[in-house]
Amino acid sequence: MKAHVYVTLKQTVLDPQGQAIHGALTKMQYQGIEEVRQGKYFVLTLSDSLDAAAAKAEVERIATDVLTNPVIEQFTFHLEDAN
Amino acid sequence: MKAHVYVTLKQTVLDPQGQAIHGALTKMQYQGIEEVRQGKYFVLTLSDSLDAAAAKAEVERIATDVLTNPVIEQFTFHLEDAN
Repeated sequence: MKAHVYVTLKQTVLDPQGQAIHGALTKMQYQGIEEVRQGKYFVLTLSDSLDAAAAKAEVERIATDVLTNPVIEQFTFHLEDAN
Repeated sequence: MKAHVYVTLKQTVLDPQGQAIHGALTKMQYQGIEEVRQGKYFVLTLSDSLDAAAAKAEVERIATDVLTNPVIEQFTFHLEDAN
């Protein structure tokens, strides 16, 4: 089973890296881009010994405690083949 | 309209950062994690003047030319509110 975790800066937190990418895209003549925000993406491969509920709990715990800085970041995740 | 772009290392490319996270999780007694791979995640906010086809083409061009190193990385993306 795989878990996909998406970590992003909270909407109220300034994202200078995203702004730099946006600035570069604008200079390179790409059209119609209003904002860019960069985040992190993790793919966790989970042991098949975990059932869907245990996997969900474990991934949520890891995302909260390890992968995310709760002061400035938030996360979402989903499980693939969760049945 | 928003575009979500996910950039990951190709499966054949070593991911030392993911391995480090995996090692840390194992030391911290998290159970059932077999592999961790880290990627990048971009959220592009697109102008409403682009229709879905133009947005798709533009995001694909940006992801290919700017956000991804085609030698070692691959990307997927999807558009939100694409209709």
